[in-house]
Amino acid sequence: MIRVAIIGASGYTGAEAIEIILRHSEAELTYLTALPEECGPVGEVFGQFKGRCALDIEPLDFNKLSSSADVALCCLPHKVSMEFVPKLLAAGVKVIDFSADYRLKDPAVYEKFYQVKHVDTANLQKAVFGLPEFYRQQIKQAELVANPGCFPTGALLALAPLLKEALVETDSIIVNSVTGASGAGKNPTEKFHFPNMNENLFAYGIGTHRHMPEMEQIASDIAGSNVEILFQPHVGSFDRGIATTAYCQPKGDVSSGKLLKLYNDFYKSEPFVQICNEAPAVKDVAGTNYCHIFPAVVKGKVVVFSAIDNLVKGASGQAVQNMNIVFGLEETLGLL
Amino acid sequence: MIRVAIIGASGYTGAEAIEIILRHSEAELTYLTALPEECGPVGEVFGQFKGRCALDIEPLDFNKLSSSADVALCCLPHKVSMEFVPKLLAAGVKVIDFSADYRLKDPAVYEKFYQVKHVDTANLQKAVFGLPEFYRQQIKQAELVANPGCFPTGALLALAPLLKEALVETDSIIVNSVTGASGAGKNPTEKFHFPNMNENLFAYGIGTHRHMPEMEQIASDIAGSNVEILFQPHVGSFDRGIATTAYCQPKGDVSSGKLLKLYNDFYKSEPFVQICNEAPAVKDVAGTNYCHIFPAVVKGKVVVFSAIDNLVKGASGQAVQNMNIVFGLEETLGLL
Amino acid sequence: MIRVAIIGASGYTGAEAIEIILRHSEAELTYLTALPEECGPVGEVFGQFKGRCALDIEPLDFNKLSSSADVALCCLPHKVSMEFVPKLLAAGVKVIDFSADYRLKDPAVYEKFYQVKHVDTANLQKAVFGLPEFYRQQIKQAELVANPGCFPTGALLALAPLLKEALVETDSIIVNSVTGASGAGKNPTEKFHFPNMNENLFAYGIGTHRHMPEMEQIASDIAGSNVEILFQPHVGSFDRGIATTAYCQPKGDVSSGKLLKLYNDFYKSEPFVQICNEAPAVKDVAGTNYCHIFPAVVKGKVVVFSAIDNLVKGASGQAVQNMNIVFGLEETLGLL
Amino acid sequence: MIRVAIIGASGYTGAEAIEIILRHSEAELTYLTALPEECGPVGEVFGQFKGRCALDIEPLDFNKLSSSADVALCCLPHKVSMEFVPKLLAAGVKVIDFSADYRLKDPAVYEKFYQVKHVDTANLQKAVFGLPEFYRQQIKQAELVANPGCFPTGALLALAPLLKEALVETDSIIVNSVTGASGAGKNPTEKFHFPNMNENLFAYGIGTHRHMPEMEQIASDIAGSNVEILFQPHVGSFDRGIATTAYCQPKGDVSSGKLLKLYNDFYKSEPFVQICNEAPAVKDVAGTNYCHIFPAVVKGKVVVFSAIDNLVKGASGQAVQNMNIVFGLEETLGLL
Repeated sequence: MIRVAIIGASGYTGAEAIEIILRHSEAELTYLTALPEECGPVGEVFGQFKGRCALDIEPLDFNKLSSSADVALCCLPHKVSMEFVPKLLAAGVKVIDFSADYRLKDPAVYEKFYQVKHVDTANLQKAVFGLPEFYRQQIKQAELVANPGCFPTGALLALAPLLKEALVETDSIIVNSVTGASGAGKNPTEKFHFPNMNENLFAYGIGTHRHMPEMEQIASDIAGSNVEILFQPHVGSFDRGIATTAYCQPKGDVSSGKLLKLYNDFYKSEPFVQICNEAPAVKDVAGTNYCHIFPAVVKGKVVVFSAIDNLVKGASGQAVQNMNIVFGLEETLGLL
Repeated sequence: MIRVAIIGASGYTGAEAIEIILRHSEAELTYLTALPEECGPVGEVFGQFKGRCALDIEPLDFNKLSSSADVALCCLPHKVSMEFVPKLLAAGVKVIDFSADYRLKDPAVYEKFYQVKHVDTANLQKAVFGLPEFYRQQIKQAELVANPGCFPTGALLALAPLLKEALVETDSIIVNSVTGASGAGKNPTEKFHFPNMNENLFAYGIGTHRHMPEMEQIASDIAGSNVEILFQPHVGSFDRGIATTAYCQPKGDVSSGKLLKLYNDFYKSEPFVQICNEAPAVKDVAGTNYCHIFPAVVKGKVVVFSAIDNLVKGASGQAVQNMNIVFGLEETLGLL
Repeated sequence: MIRVAIIGASGYTGAEAIEIILRHSEAELTYLTALPEECGPVGEVFGQFKGRCALDIEPLDFNKLSSSADVALCCLPHKVSMEFVPKLLAAGVKVIDFSADYRLKDPAVYEKFYQVKHVDTANLQKAVFGLPEFYRQQIKQAELVANPGCFPTGALLALAPLLKEALVETDSIIVNSVTGASGAGKNPTEKFHFPNMNENLFAYGIGTHRHMPEMEQIASDIAGSNVEILFQPHVGSFDRGIATTAYCQPKGDVSSGKLLKLYNDFYKSEPFVQICNEAPAVKDVAGTNYCHIFPAVVKGKVVVFSAIDNLVKGASGQAVQNMNIVFGLEETLGLL
Repeated sequence: MIRVAIIGASGYTGAEAIEIILRHSEAELTYLTALPEECGPVGEVFGQFKGRCALDIEPLDFNKLSSSADVALCCLPHKVSMEFVPKLLAAGVKVIDFSADYRLKDPAVYEKFYQVKHVDTANLQKAVFGLPEFYRQQIKQAELVANPGCFPTGALLALAPLLKEALVETDSIIVNSVTGASGAGKNPTEKFHFPNMNENLFAYGIGTHRHMPEMEQIASDIAGSNVEILFQPHVGSFDRGIATTAYCQPKGDVSSGKLLKLYNDFYKSEPFVQICNEAPAVKDVAGTNYCHIFPAVVKGKVVVFSAIDNLVKGASGQAVQNMNIVFGLEETLGLL
């Protein structure tokens, strides 16, 4: 049994990770940590775990981590994560990091979008971007996996076949996404107060969302050349899921039929990517680690629709998928 | 035109009062006030008023109030309200107070449930309980109207015919209600954070809800004898509305048919009470000042269902109804 | 008082029209019609009108229409509408038609997208497109107003300043919209069954949505040259509202600041268009006739965000606005 | 591996059963059946199973059932179920029946509430009521388990300790419940059309709900004497879950503290019943097989709050729990 620690277990991605590991046949939760004020029996911190998990969430002790876990799922927020990850690694565990701190290879880009100096550039260079569909081989060897952002996961899976096959112009891609409100995290705010968020939908992060450079970096890596993406997120009044609609300019002639065949072939061996025959629905992927995709040609443009659960394939599910790969387990364990 | 000031205009009941007065043909908004940190153009404080109302929300100045308004709709929270109401009255305006501070005639009951000493017992004695269906004559003369709580409005309208006609035992009434989340007010909290409140429903205020003594006081007044009510509120994942289901033990023989006739006769002249032929739906009254009621006999008990909008008939709509009465206007102005 | 008939009063746009006319100070409902199987007291057909409107919904009788109404708000579906409108006009009333039947000037385009031959091309040519912000003068003289579609209203108000000022390329506009579920109408279907639609969001009408040619026709008219629009609608789990995000390629240098000033100037005199300083929220316009707009420059593209209520500015509210114009009333009556 | 057939796999309880068995380590889906018009690859019938289950849903063939399955989870509606169950049993499989057809021991009560003659009284007498917390020993031996209704499950678990210990009057129990909309099944109707059901809550089945006699029968069996229950269901605008609030008259002195201890002791060994220290939230049990309960004394009455997921502990989860018991597996397999 792989022994799993969750660092920062008191937030939504922590809870989702607990949920998944509880159902995992070859991994077990051994250590849950959080800030002292958020500690307590896990069934009290999260009502949904009452009677399902006997662990306490405790303040982090690196010695205890060292002796009790093989891997740390690190659910700390960015900026905080890069202060803890070196110590987690030093404690002898592999790390799947949920934050953005190890995703952007260029510290200058990181510092521009996150407004803080990167303090762990050594590990930044060693970190592997945890999108298994494209970096599976590297993930197998990784000590530190940078688990992708939720929006980049949905967008990159939608765009990759086009980029890999060089079918579209790479200077004018538009990614329009709508996420459920759990993406905002557990901290109550005015915008996400139920009477404001309910029956609502609005755009945010106009031109400034931090997942834009992340998308561009990985898209460029997949394409083998520079890719420019205009990414526009919106948030709607549902808990879970991201619906992404990407618009691209094709380079030559394409048809919906050819695209559909290309996508089916491209993702044929991927357990968690499903190509649909119509636009995917957020509800079909909610609570699962699946990404549903439908590509089409509309008025001379390529339009690709994808749907994922932001907390599963967009966070904790993908983290467990990465963990399975790192430890040589069946990649789908705990995730079907 | 009646000149209307709203004191505490930055919360949900304030916004709803603005909405209603904007549509009122014989009343106009002249003065909106709030705490300094919540002030600003009303269209910026509340996006829904952009372009619809040119007023600023300002810190309260009693001289300005005195010169600009005939009536103050006082939307301050309890405990705060009783400190301001005497000064509002001294400024020469009539007051419709939304708080609980002038509803409970017995200061000892107030102090037990609100955990604070009542500091304006003089005005407490003069205040009229603003449930027009039962206190219309007194409201006409009132300087100060204590606008009823949302739960008591729905429950009392449901129970009153039974109490008035002495058809049910008064020592064992159960009132089970479910309110929309706007009832919790504008302040973000963990419970009402969208990802927690969405797709949720739970009971709260078990045995301690402050609307219980208010219901009992008015129910007793209507019945002419002491009435005991077990009131249990719940909150569900919708914005607006209260569905109340009241259970009573009949004193003698009753039938659903007789009850329906009694309710129809009882409320025949009331513009805002409608008797239905099936259980009312919250959505049918949402955004309106109406109370829908359906009484039935089930397994030997009388069960009465009512539905109101907690922010309209349960707060700001009823306040405008009271204002209309106080100023001798058509009672339904602005509310149809 | 303008006497208003509503033809097809049993659907959602009919109900919204009733709601608005009930609050209108210079118009009154005199005649409500529907298919025989959908008739009855309006308060029984729609629970929300119980006690608020004493009319019955009746089968349509043209003589009764002729004697009782000055104007017909025709809420019939497309294909049906063009069979009734000539007779409504013959009955001597002005007509505001909610269907698509009189919007597309080219019968061939109509026939392509609606798969039926146009049977009233005579009136088609006389009909005025009822977007008051651009066709106010023509609407004043109209006997027959073609009330715009919901998506085109939100999209055209967002795009018009760019088109009028020739600031963007007109061959590559992308309009991405998310509508609330009321847009699907009153008829129960699998997709809109609550347990499927709730907590859901998905794209539909890929490349085939009928509002695409409507947008293009009016956009071209405003631009004075041919405009191509890729329109992609989505539906989300909320009742009301449309959030539109439009992406355009600027022709020359633009800045967010200049755009904002342009939009503010452009719509300065329009009562129902409000320019915001951030992306508009669907909830701020829900239940109102307002359109909120925010333009920005993002990564070299112009991105414009708009929000309307699909049933109000996108249907019944705009119809009443048109009615007010046709009858020389204050344009905002019943709509503030 | 236990080989599981699902009869009537095209509805919501069928889908939930598929979901659970997919995660079960000692059971596997071998045969899925439905009416011919609802057949097809399971990933097309239910988008959420795309790529997760390769089976087709097929028309039922008893020979195929006989050779491919050890147990049938029979998700047919009442009235239909009793026509198929004898044949399922004859095919040599154990049956967990989801309908009401084998729950009411008295065929006269069945015929009164379901308005149809019972056609399989022989198996009715042999069927065991599948509430494991009370009938575990009988379930172990059963060929045919009558899986309990969703409302009775939540209500009976809440009431049982009081009934077993004879702490409350049994002639005046009130059970007030609110269910999520998935309880209405997959067939689109006007009431459950999203624009009607969303932001709504209403009572239904007043005095006539078929779960009332089921509750009374089992409650009487647990109490050892006749129990009368007034059961009033409501439906709210959320997918999953039932919140039940039960009101009872205590026979003697009780306190909240004593009750809490009694409930904790009573359910100490039950894996799926959790006693809370505050009113349970529907969201905490959604998607799980758990029942959360909180008992309290309020104004001299005993009030018990419970929450379950209507599709899991209220249907498919409990069915799998029963299946585990019947086959001597760990009772919690697939359900943690």
